[in-house]
Amino acid sequence: MALTKFPADQINMTEIFDFVGGGEGQWKVISINPVIGESLEIVPFLNVKPGTQEKLAEGSWSLKGFRSNLRYAEKAEKEKLLAIQANLGRPEATCAALIPISKNAEWWALAQDERRKIFEADSKHTEIGLKYLPPIARKLYHCRDFNEPFDFLTWFEYAPAHADFFEELVDRLRKTREWGFVEREVDIRLKK
Amino acid sequence: MALTKFPADQINMTEIFDFVGGGEGQWKVISINPVIGESLEIVPFLNVKPGTQEKLAEGSWSLKGFRSNLRYAEKAEKEKLLAIQANLGRPEATCAALIPISKNAEWWALAQDERRKIFEADSKHTEIGLKYLPPIARKLYHCRDFNEPFDFLTWFEYAPAHADFFEELVDRLRKTREWGFVEREVDIRLKK
Repeated sequence: MALTKFPADQINMTEIFDFVGGGEGQWKVISINPVIGESLEIVPFLNVKPGTQEKLAEGSWSLKGFRSNLRYAEKAEKEKLLAIQANLGRPEATCAALIPISKNAEWWALAQDERRKIFEADSKHTEIGLKYLPPIARKLYHCRDFNEPFDFLTWFEYAPAHADFFEELVDRLRKTREWGFVEREVDIRLKK
Repeated sequence: MALTKFPADQINMTEIFDFVGGGEGQWKVISINPVIGESLEIVPFLNVKPGTQEKLAEGSWSLKGFRSNLRYAEKAEKEKLLAIQANLGRPEATCAALIPISKNAEWWALAQDERRKIFEADSKHTEIGLKYLPPIARKLYHCRDFNEPFDFLTWFEYAPAHADFFEELVDRLRKTREWGFVEREVDIRLKK
């Protein structure tokens, strides 16, 4: 009966994704390295698929994340992002990185204006990201509100020719003031 | 195996709640009225409990919401809120209202600064709410990112002596510019 009140067409399940590390998947895992805090178990493949409740195979892990509205970008930044953003799944973009991140309690206790100041005024998060578009396609998935072990799943896709360019982007972000609030980060590199 | 990577102490399930309308619960339903859009099925009781995956009894509905960080409040506003906010469960607060709300696609397409301007500069959402504290205790639960039929579950508790004061608060909020973006709202009144 509840279902009649929750028609499926109101519900866009494609906005929730499972990133499943295990024995199969469209991405081959090249490396899994802890950057800050505990790592994740080494698995040979990563599968990215619409969110489900299905049980995990032995030796697998799953991280659930959802797409959401932008939390910090202002109008001008958003318009720049929309103008030059690159889509996922480009044939030449055979390299990917999944970098799950958690921020500490201090970060989450900050007010919106305090977080915005650190994110952009101090750390230039969007400004830096824009410099690497369109070669480095990025997507952010939220998971903190699902009580997951990470707050965010950051996803990047790029062509092998842009591998050094990607390392530069990651290196710059990790040197920002914002990263001082990161308490767990795992860097997972993938190949199609 | 995945569990060893997701220790329970990292996970605070108490931040997710189910608001279950049905045959039993700690709150007696006084009325369920649509304000904007489709209503919810009439049920005699409402039960508020930590989030679960358990199956619903026939003739019941359930709305899942999570507590999260403040999305618009700035430092000064947050400090005022923390200074005078009232807790839930006060013995004298035997009246409650559950008002699930959804905002339209136009709202969610706005950038953070545009939403903030409408929320506070234009609509004085926090400023109005502060005027009614501590008599009217308020809690906001998010659900949009769970693909629920509503974006927010707003919850209010107050003493019968403050019933008119509560009507005034709801009436003022519904007249704001922000409410022009509300595409679904159901007003559920409860008694302990």
